[in-house]
Amino acid sequence: MAKSYFSMRNLHFLLEEVHNSSQLLSYPRYEHLDGEALRMMLDAAKDLADTHLFPHFADMDRKAPHYENGKVTVHPQIKAIIEAMKEGGWIDASFPLESGGMQAPDIILAATTFIFLAANNGAAGYTGLTTGSARLILNFGSQELKDTYLSHMLSGDWQGTMALTEPDAGSALSFLSSAAEPTEEGYFKMTGQKVFISGGDHNYTNNVVHLVLARIKGAPKGTKGISLFVVPKYRPDGSGGLVDNDVTTLGIYHKMGQKATPAVHFDMGSKSDCRGYLVGEPNKGLSYMFQMMNEARIAVGLWGAALGSAAYYASLEYAQERPQGKPLSNLKKQTTQIPIIKHPDVKRMLLLQKALTEGSLSLVLQCAQYSDLAHAAEGKEAKRYHDLLELLTPVAKTYGSEAGVVSVSNGLQCLGGYGYCEDFPLEQLYRDIRLTPIYEGTTGIQSLDLLGRKVVAGGGKSAKLYHQEVLKTITRAETHPELKKYAEMLKGELMRLQKVSMHLIPFAMKGEYERYLADATLFMEMFSIITVAWQWLKQAAVAKERLITSRMNAEAYAFYQSKIHTMKFYFAYEVPKTLGLSTRLTDNEVLTIDVGEEVFC
Amino acid sequence: MAKSYFSMRNLHFLLEEVHNSSQLLSYPRYEHLDGEALRMMLDAAKDLADTHLFPHFADMDRKAPHYENGKVTVHPQIKAIIEAMKEGGWIDASFPLESGGMQAPDIILAATTFIFLAANNGAAGYTGLTTGSARLILNFGSQELKDTYLSHMLSGDWQGTMALTEPDAGSALSFLSSAAEPTEEGYFKMTGQKVFISGGDHNYTNNVVHLVLARIKGAPKGTKGISLFVVPKYRPDGSGGLVDNDVTTLGIYHKMGQKATPAVHFDMGSKSDCRGYLVGEPNKGLSYMFQMMNEARIAVGLWGAALGSAAYYASLEYAQERPQGKPLSNLKKQTTQIPIIKHPDVKRMLLLQKALTEGSLSLVLQCAQYSDLAHAAEGKEAKRYHDLLELLTPVAKTYGSEAGVVSVSNGLQCLGGYGYCEDFPLEQLYRDIRLTPIYEGTTGIQSLDLLGRKVVAGGGKSAKLYHQEVLKTITRAETHPELKKYAEMLKGELMRLQKVSMHLIPFAMKGEYERYLADATLFMEMFSIITVAWQWLKQAAVAKERLITSRMNAEAYAFYQSKIHTMKFYFAYEVPKTLGLSTRLTDNEVLTIDVGEEVFC
Repeated sequence: MAKSYFSMRNLHFLLEEVHNSSQLLSYPRYEHLDGEALRMMLDAAKDLADTHLFPHFADMDRKAPHYENGKVTVHPQIKAIIEAMKEGGWIDASFPLESGGMQAPDIILAATTFIFLAANNGAAGYTGLTTGSARLILNFGSQELKDTYLSHMLSGDWQGTMALTEPDAGSALSFLSSAAEPTEEGYFKMTGQKVFISGGDHNYTNNVVHLVLARIKGAPKGTKGISLFVVPKYRPDGSGGLVDNDVTTLGIYHKMGQKATPAVHFDMGSKSDCRGYLVGEPNKGLSYMFQMMNEARIAVGLWGAALGSAAYYASLEYAQERPQGKPLSNLKKQTTQIPIIKHPDVKRMLLLQKALTEGSLSLVLQCAQYSDLAHAAEGKEAKRYHDLLELLTPVAKTYGSEAGVVSVSNGLQCLGGYGYCEDFPLEQLYRDIRLTPIYEGTTGIQSLDLLGRKVVAGGGKSAKLYHQEVLKTITRAETHPELKKYAEMLKGELMRLQKVSMHLIPFAMKGEYERYLADATLFMEMFSIITVAWQWLKQAAVAKERLITSRMNAEAYAFYQSKIHTMKFYFAYEVPKTLGLSTRLTDNEVLTIDVGEEVFC
Repeated sequence: MAKSYFSMRNLHFLLEEVHNSSQLLSYPRYEHLDGEALRMMLDAAKDLADTHLFPHFADMDRKAPHYENGKVTVHPQIKAIIEAMKEGGWIDASFPLESGGMQAPDIILAATTFIFLAANNGAAGYTGLTTGSARLILNFGSQELKDTYLSHMLSGDWQGTMALTEPDAGSALSFLSSAAEPTEEGYFKMTGQKVFISGGDHNYTNNVVHLVLARIKGAPKGTKGISLFVVPKYRPDGSGGLVDNDVTTLGIYHKMGQKATPAVHFDMGSKSDCRGYLVGEPNKGLSYMFQMMNEARIAVGLWGAALGSAAYYASLEYAQERPQGKPLSNLKKQTTQIPIIKHPDVKRMLLLQKALTEGSLSLVLQCAQYSDLAHAAEGKEAKRYHDLLELLTPVAKTYGSEAGVVSVSNGLQCLGGYGYCEDFPLEQLYRDIRLTPIYEGTTGIQSLDLLGRKVVAGGGKSAKLYHQEVLKTITRAETHPELKKYAEMLKGELMRLQKVSMHLIPFAMKGEYERYLADATLFMEMFSIITVAWQWLKQAAVAKERLITSRMNAEAYAFYQSKIHTMKFYFAYEVPKTLGLSTRLTDNEVLTIDVGEEVFC
């Protein structure tokens, strides 16, 4: 087992110095908190992760959930983890004060979730799912639903899920067919099946509360006819007891990774006795669910950054300890082996991991900050942050995932053959992270969202706000001679992005949507590389300011220098990829849209 | 299970039309063969793979080898596979006629191995390892060694291995410490441990013949003191029996993939009774082993292409059958779902797989052709092909591996959540292929070999030959108006490569080797993208010639058009990556060599 999986110093830097979390405390929404309280939350998260999560990471993979006779049995440590999450106040930490929560800022909860995920990503999802689904009930449910479900869920007693996907409706939710038939008693009779439902059943919960998307009989086709329901596995009988609600667990999927959390296939209404309870208004289910989906997308970006962090520290430790080979600069005289961290290519792989991981973490925290400001501020200011968050959500999800996969793979590569074996955590991290570009909307879907909706939303308003934000960082950085070159580079990248957008948008204006979006995934890659370059320049600017204005010890000095160095690495090794991407994106040769199936021979 | 895992039509095209395998038949070395015989070998390989390999692919992963009390038990189907390989004459197909082999060309054996690996990569390695190690004995061993071992190995009765890696000597073989003490009886007393030895022990062989690298007591340090030994698990007692040779299997590694073949950790001489038999001359072991290593490196490139092929056909089948979503061009009117193959982004992922997989396969077959010509031709001509083979070996190994990983990942992505689950072969292929950038020399090691040795070998002689070969293809292609643009592009890429080399080589000339090689991995990426662009232009030129000169049916027409289209795709989506790579490679900012460990905080 590796010794470390994240850097608290880096979290403090990103939260306090880069994303200025204390600024939030000046808003009334967060006036019950102070800087000390936020720091204590981080420490508490680390304690929990060190004790209950990290030591069980490998074992929960080896002893994966199993399904038998309708029952799902998961690793026994899950019980302790749910208990610890409840004790620590994590399940409702995001909930409003008046609902008994901590009303903690998203940026702090993103940081604590990062710690949990880096420690043991397969186990951290259980209570996160409960929190997310409980919040849907809180925000959109009736008082009766809140009274019936929230306390049980927030105590960790009942598991929550988000149940969207069906066998025939994955990426295309508009085709979902789960049905809800109204009854005179107010509830709905539910029928249908859901697949890939994380945490959808297990032996350490007394009930499972599915937040289910389904169609009320007679509802319009497509997304406009989708409603949201609470469908418990056991329904309250009105006198304090629970009765079976005709929800049958049909099986679990055997996944390559993230094994600690079962992905469940369940059926509703095989005995015509499954009751669902409408959340909010009919036919508005998808818009409600998108609240949870958007949060989940940011969380997946965080997931990627967290697994990247765990892989980085595990491979760093190995590289420091493993002697192998001689320095190229001294092949003849050197007679003993050197730690592999001294080889330039290993340094490159470690710096790459650091650049990708800390870059995507910074981006996710940026999103969380926008989310907090959108909630804490008012009027136009709030709208501005909301728009920025909307634009960057698919980017944070996708970059965290895709860069995370590359990063973990480079971590594995540092260990050579040992990286491929169970003795080290890299192979598990490599399997675990591969789900991130898939769930909560694949990279392809996120890319359609970015280019097809977000970039052009409100006539490109969000894109303009984004431009302004990046320019702010450029202005801040270019005052420092050491950073000026990179500030100029980023300015050039913004222009390159502009040029690509100007090339593509006319297709959308002409109604040629397939052409417009054919290479959306490449646009996403380019956009996200530039966005993370912005996050790195921001980190470097902060570091440079500290180095200039503060006296500090050697360790702090090294930390800030490392930020500047890693920024340079990112600009040298990652940013030039936009050259190839923009070449393709402005090329008029169409090679995918019109091609017939006979090409795939 | 997917229905298909490779295209016989494509193999025929690459062998006969692109790499002109029948040209080989004009050399005396291959005069015992004819085109029909070569085609029959391919058909026989497909039959064997369809019957004995492909149906067991998943099961051999689920029922992985296990180790208990010094014994390794593997999947029962291994017995049938070894038997079928023997019956089919595959174990000694590459052996000379006078040794009872078929003296088959490498290019045909590469094609048949491709079929075996695409069908079931974990199972195809057993007899391949035996062949490779038997050939070391054939080429460098004494008559006594040949008489004692070859017939047992070539009959599939005894398993062969290559035993290089030790706990403290992986990439840096010069530090290996297994020892061989001469005795007056002629044999050596062996001590030491070897790790990660594929096929190093199992229950379906009557003996294991390790080809072991070790140092004779008193030998020079480093690579100059390494000798090659035959170390059997049971040694012949001189009267037809076998006695224990004090080789102890200590355990097996639990790998992420390629599980069907055990990776064994064994010890020699714990009871001071392990005998080794010197192969060839003392202290020349590494050069002998490099014969097998170079073959193995080409084989790993093939491995990557083969798994890419299996993933491509599995994801293609899914994409054709899975309805999901509506066409962007007709979102409003369309009411039913379309097969996902109709979405441009899915087409892009399929074309990418096809481009990477068929490109790397063509490159490997190109290497095999050079190998055959180096053997079949004489004098300067033979040397020319030998030099080209030497240059391209690390490229074929690395591109096949690295592009293969990307390709399989795109295959997995086409299936969304289903790609991540055991129900489809993608997740296994994704795990299996991740070993290819590691074994037989990691990507980092191959890249040092390419830039540090091969590109500058003989004052850049091989590089000039390479240049000539690529120019030949450019000249051939540019006569066709449709291909002219791509021929010009490739010419430009050769110049870009030249420019990068001219920037880097002066560092080598100044003795600044670390600086020269710091970004060797990026140089490899650039070099291999251009090399595969060459292979694609070659395929497109052949296809264009056929389309112009031959009458053909619709299927053949589609096949050749598909080759031209995929070439265009490769040039549009892959080749532009050299822009970013060359930018970095000609950048004077040094970011890895001098950086201290304090940056990794």
